[in-house]
Amino acid sequence: MSGSTFGQLFRVTNFGESHGPAIGCVIDGCPPGLALSEADIQPDLDRRRPGTSRHVTQRNEPDAVEILSGVYEGQTTGTPICLLIRNTDQRSKDYGNIVQTFRPGHADYTYWHKYGIRDPRGGGRSSARLTAPMVAAGAVAKKWLAQQHGTTFRGCMTQLGEIEIPFESWDHVPRNPFFAANASDIARLEDYMDALRKAGDSVGARLRVEALGVPVGLGEPLFDKLDADIAYAMMGINAVKGVEIGAGFACVAQKGTEHGDELTPQGFRSNNAGGVLGGISTGQDLVVHLAIKPTSSIRTPRQSIDLQGQPATVETFGRHDPCVGIRATPIAEAMLALVVMDHALRHRAQCGDVSVATPQIPARAPQA
Amino acid sequence: MSGSTFGQLFRVTNFGESHGPAIGCVIDGCPPGLALSEADIQPDLDRRRPGTSRHVTQRNEPDAVEILSGVYEGQTTGTPICLLIRNTDQRSKDYGNIVQTFRPGHADYTYWHKYGIRDPRGGGRSSARLTAPMVAAGAVAKKWLAQQHGTTFRGCMTQLGEIEIPFESWDHVPRNPFFAANASDIARLEDYMDALRKAGDSVGARLRVEALGVPVGLGEPLFDKLDADIAYAMMGINAVKGVEIGAGFACVAQKGTEHGDELTPQGFRSNNAGGVLGGISTGQDLVVHLAIKPTSSIRTPRQSIDLQGQPATVETFGRHDPCVGIRATPIAEAMLALVVMDHALRHRAQCGDVSVATPQIPARAPQA
Amino acid sequence: MSGSTFGQLFRVTNFGESHGPAIGCVIDGCPPGLALSEADIQPDLDRRRPGTSRHVTQRNEPDAVEILSGVYEGQTTGTPICLLIRNTDQRSKDYGNIVQTFRPGHADYTYWHKYGIRDPRGGGRSSARLTAPMVAAGAVAKKWLAQQHGTTFRGCMTQLGEIEIPFESWDHVPRNPFFAANASDIARLEDYMDALRKAGDSVGARLRVEALGVPVGLGEPLFDKLDADIAYAMMGINAVKGVEIGAGFACVAQKGTEHGDELTPQGFRSNNAGGVLGGISTGQDLVVHLAIKPTSSIRTPRQSIDLQGQPATVETFGRHDPCVGIRATPIAEAMLALVVMDHALRHRAQCGDVSVATPQIPARAPQA
Amino acid sequence: MSGSTFGQLFRVTNFGESHGPAIGCVIDGCPPGLALSEADIQPDLDRRRPGTSRHVTQRNEPDAVEILSGVYEGQTTGTPICLLIRNTDQRSKDYGNIVQTFRPGHADYTYWHKYGIRDPRGGGRSSARLTAPMVAAGAVAKKWLAQQHGTTFRGCMTQLGEIEIPFESWDHVPRNPFFAANASDIARLEDYMDALRKAGDSVGARLRVEALGVPVGLGEPLFDKLDADIAYAMMGINAVKGVEIGAGFACVAQKGTEHGDELTPQGFRSNNAGGVLGGISTGQDLVVHLAIKPTSSIRTPRQSIDLQGQPATVETFGRHDPCVGIRATPIAEAMLALVVMDHALRHRAQCGDVSVATPQIPARAPQA
Repeated sequence: MSGSTFGQLFRVTNFGESHGPAIGCVIDGCPPGLALSEADIQPDLDRRRPGTSRHVTQRNEPDAVEILSGVYEGQTTGTPICLLIRNTDQRSKDYGNIVQTFRPGHADYTYWHKYGIRDPRGGGRSSARLTAPMVAAGAVAKKWLAQQHGTTFRGCMTQLGEIEIPFESWDHVPRNPFFAANASDIARLEDYMDALRKAGDSVGARLRVEALGVPVGLGEPLFDKLDADIAYAMMGINAVKGVEIGAGFACVAQKGTEHGDELTPQGFRSNNAGGVLGGISTGQDLVVHLAIKPTSSIRTPRQSIDLQGQPATVETFGRHDPCVGIRATPIAEAMLALVVMDHALRHRAQCGDVSVATPQIPARAPQA
Repeated sequence: MSGSTFGQLFRVTNFGESHGPAIGCVIDGCPPGLALSEADIQPDLDRRRPGTSRHVTQRNEPDAVEILSGVYEGQTTGTPICLLIRNTDQRSKDYGNIVQTFRPGHADYTYWHKYGIRDPRGGGRSSARLTAPMVAAGAVAKKWLAQQHGTTFRGCMTQLGEIEIPFESWDHVPRNPFFAANASDIARLEDYMDALRKAGDSVGARLRVEALGVPVGLGEPLFDKLDADIAYAMMGINAVKGVEIGAGFACVAQKGTEHGDELTPQGFRSNNAGGVLGGISTGQDLVVHLAIKPTSSIRTPRQSIDLQGQPATVETFGRHDPCVGIRATPIAEAMLALVVMDHALRHRAQCGDVSVATPQIPARAPQA
Repeated sequence: MSGSTFGQLFRVTNFGESHGPAIGCVIDGCPPGLALSEADIQPDLDRRRPGTSRHVTQRNEPDAVEILSGVYEGQTTGTPICLLIRNTDQRSKDYGNIVQTFRPGHADYTYWHKYGIRDPRGGGRSSARLTAPMVAAGAVAKKWLAQQHGTTFRGCMTQLGEIEIPFESWDHVPRNPFFAANASDIARLEDYMDALRKAGDSVGARLRVEALGVPVGLGEPLFDKLDADIAYAMMGINAVKGVEIGAGFACVAQKGTEHGDELTPQGFRSNNAGGVLGGISTGQDLVVHLAIKPTSSIRTPRQSIDLQGQPATVETFGRHDPCVGIRATPIAEAMLALVVMDHALRHRAQCGDVSVATPQIPARAPQA
Repeated sequence: MSGSTFGQLFRVTNFGESHGPAIGCVIDGCPPGLALSEADIQPDLDRRRPGTSRHVTQRNEPDAVEILSGVYEGQTTGTPICLLIRNTDQRSKDYGNIVQTFRPGHADYTYWHKYGIRDPRGGGRSSARLTAPMVAAGAVAKKWLAQQHGTTFRGCMTQLGEIEIPFESWDHVPRNPFFAANASDIARLEDYMDALRKAGDSVGARLRVEALGVPVGLGEPLFDKLDADIAYAMMGINAVKGVEIGAGFACVAQKGTEHGDELTPQGFRSNNAGGVLGGISTGQDLVVHLAIKPTSSIRTPRQSIDLQGQPATVETFGRHDPCVGIRATPIAEAMLALVVMDHALRHRAQCGDVSVATPQIPARAPQA
């Protein structure tokens, strides 16, 4: 696995920079015979797209995807699918003032030291814009998984800065700009974001993402555990600093008698495991939480150094999301779908068709 | 990357089961010319070894490592290093009562559904015993990193069940059975564990693990981010349910003005990043926290089902750790070392010799 | 390694079909700081390009390459380099008559059985047109290797059908349409090809390709031997059926006293090894021969079956090379360059900077 | 893929040196539920074993294999299978005289330059003894392929030095020490080898190896073509310098009308393709030829240099095969089986169960 390829058998190779001519990806290993067109992919891209509310970056990108290969007469052929997204609204001059300094909390510093060169336009390769091709690839995985196994994915924001967002209903998620499973507190969240933007600051967020209808038996026992690969996928999303599966950090204070999910002929009685035991899916819902740090590009002046190591004050102008977590839900869903897809193929390779588990009770109501 | 091989260039392939004749690993890609003998590896294995206090499993395993290949006249030759550890104290009959049922919270259920067959003796392949070869491999990585870059590793338990363990000094860690950086609260921890054992229950733990003296520039920008690979490595350790880098979940409620670590000519002013920005090491200490769930094998009876899907009550006898977190510190250190080692070689491949960062201030005092 | 990605550390992921909108590749792992523009890549593409003489397909493709990512202000940044080549002269209607049948000797049959679907336009993914992105990627590898190690690549045709082509001078290669290192026999080759074309038939060819100035020590000892990876690369080129390293099949009748290349303080006395011993480069020239089969798409009617398994007669119209070997020399050079590049990075990862061998005598004069 | 691991999904990691305590391999990815014991593996190891006739090395090694993991109650569990072979007849003193010099044609020189250190005992890691674990792993692959698809493997020597060996019948292969499909010329071959041994020289050989009953559709279209992976596998066997698929180098002088195998409703009319079109299996027999160079360790004095670059004369004593090709047939069969096995799993991952091809005529009689 190289640094720009995700997955073992459903492999997605990502390319591009924020302000280059285009971004995109090549999917290799997609099963043949899947009906596929741009219309299957665009909706998820639209959910992640910038400029959809005043709370996210005002960069105006249609993020229109073009399928360059791998599809013939509306069906995948089993050969690589290249998905291309042209960049259209680059304003590289906005970033001129950060070329000579390192933004605190930003990859500026590490790219410079690693490579001795960096593309500073819009963060270059380190921009969260590079998640768009993953959302596109995830849409392909979602379609196949839905058809083959009835697997579906969903996610929501559970905390914005200090504000915990009570879960009310999944139905609310597409109806507010925060991907909150909530209708009652949206005004409060909007006020919070407005104040933050005015203050020239940014804030973190906490998300929950789930997979439903996952076949039992996916995942490798030792290293490529399903939860290990999920942690890898989530921690690889820009700005993520923490990942939990199931009970997560709450398991520290749990007793074995409380944590271990009992089984009945009707299924599991609880889901502290988050759908994974010993690295392998139980057939229950996969439940993942992630912590997203505040955006590092903010208008408030901060202390830093320049390329010569001298003190410098950095203020970032240009267009930035004051909370990158707001647009991260479709990204996290896509990465989860890519992990499940890859393991579905891996399992089929070694063990043949996927198993059918014993009956299961419905998953617990979601909790932050 | 297959399910039993860890790493891209410093590759460790693990084999064995808890009660088979032997466990071990093959390290491929180790640089040649490293002085190496069993004596370099055994101390870390001894730190992880069972039977060293009344708070861990009483299985009596010397865990004596044998180097089968890859070393000639006391030096690594650049060819695969096979490390073998014979199992000596298997009592498979202890496990007879769990062959027909699934322990709640255990991999019994998922192995059975994935493979249609499982080795039930001591948990077979799902046993935490399989971390021993990783500790051995980690010792090789630690030695090379220490010699080449002065990198060192350390870890401690920061919480046992409900009890937070105040950080006092790293010096205390080797002097108590809990790997606690603390001397004042050890008696309390011992009482807690004694009561737990008497109750036939188990409990979770929280650990902190660090790497010091990491070269700047390690990690890949998009997928094989250093922190993503750390998350993958940690979540792959048996029973881990959560991973944090730097500020971790605390970053959710942080503002950008608080989270982003300011730079000065003397170095970073803080380390909310945990040593990683944009997936690449900053040269600061890598700081990782992990959550370990309570052991699923407990004496208290629990509800489950048998292989036929019928209700069954499960009580686990045999020898088990009531808190697997107690022996997990050397395992987490080893996995962190393997990640850093792999990225040191990967960086050298693409970019040549590692960079030297601008001066740095010392890392912050550790906090749970 | 997936089916569309070549290399371990200098990884080239290829995408596209002969008559889709575009073909291209993504190079991941290129060292940063290499000066690079389209002008470095286009010349090799032009050498491989169709339509340059009457002896190759008359498809008119400029094969103009566009760098979509990975280069900033004229230098590689260390991030993925996407190279795009738009298809401009597709005449898919030419191929209508082969949609329902399988051409003898063609991948039609196997694609259909593997995937249950195939893109028949111009051979789809099985077209030799997909070698163009590899030639482009090879040009990047060649530039880096030339700058870092002084390594260069060259190749020539040594046999066309029954006609062996005597080696006269490397200087002749770019001056005839056959990549022959010969000036005396070119008219004879042209007559041969003209007759063949008139007959509606095709023919095979034999090529020689070399790398000069290869550092000693490249290659892995057991599986990823340098010669094994070369064989893999060459056999992966469309229509190749045989590969030889150094003495090749002639070694069968050699004695050990004849084959083993003696060493002197001035270097090796011969190069039966073809520059590789035990899978590792000796520092001598790499010498490789390959056999290329006759094109399967010919105008002469042949017996075959249709999709229903019924007998059918197949005649192929459209535009085809009567000898695919004619344009294969730059392809073989590129693939050899990609192998050497990958191993240069792999060697640097494990062993640090490349070694300098003892002095060497010049390579032998090339022989078919 | 690292230098000591073969395969993508059926992964074999090889370890050990000729005169270390043990050699072996770890197979990861084997399907679960395969009945397996040492008795399934030992017969192929016995076919490759040294000391079975006067024409091969007199080293006395039982090559007894021990299964250390991955098998429970006589069935594979889907977890790694470690196969261990103890070395028992090392006489390292025999090799003392070659420590300071480089044998012409041997890996001594390249190992030294690559690693700066080498294990000279019996050739260390470069010894053909390291093929024994691959023969063992191949036996596992053969068993699964035979049960699942009815695939079988066979091979024979077709030329020994200058002597071509006429094909008479496959039945003769196990009845002579040369793996010759011939009974009439065996005495001549024995005389030839006796004279060669007396002369202190060595010689090359040519082998043919086949797979029968291969499912149609195995192989990846672009890089991991089935024939490319076969070439990689064969060229990776010690001493191999050339590989052909089907018609091989003879295709150079073939016309398209001759080479392309016509199809009928009953199957293919010929097999110039050697069972592969466009990198994917046709369902016909896989037919592979390989050229094996003469052993480099010979008693006849040869010119070389020592570690200081000074002239030296090298004579090799110790025990060596005068023709390594004699024991190479089971090795080549095993490597072919490993390639087919890996692709069977890869195909199942992407495309589900393997296809069934249209009816086929029997393969042609084997030809050298």
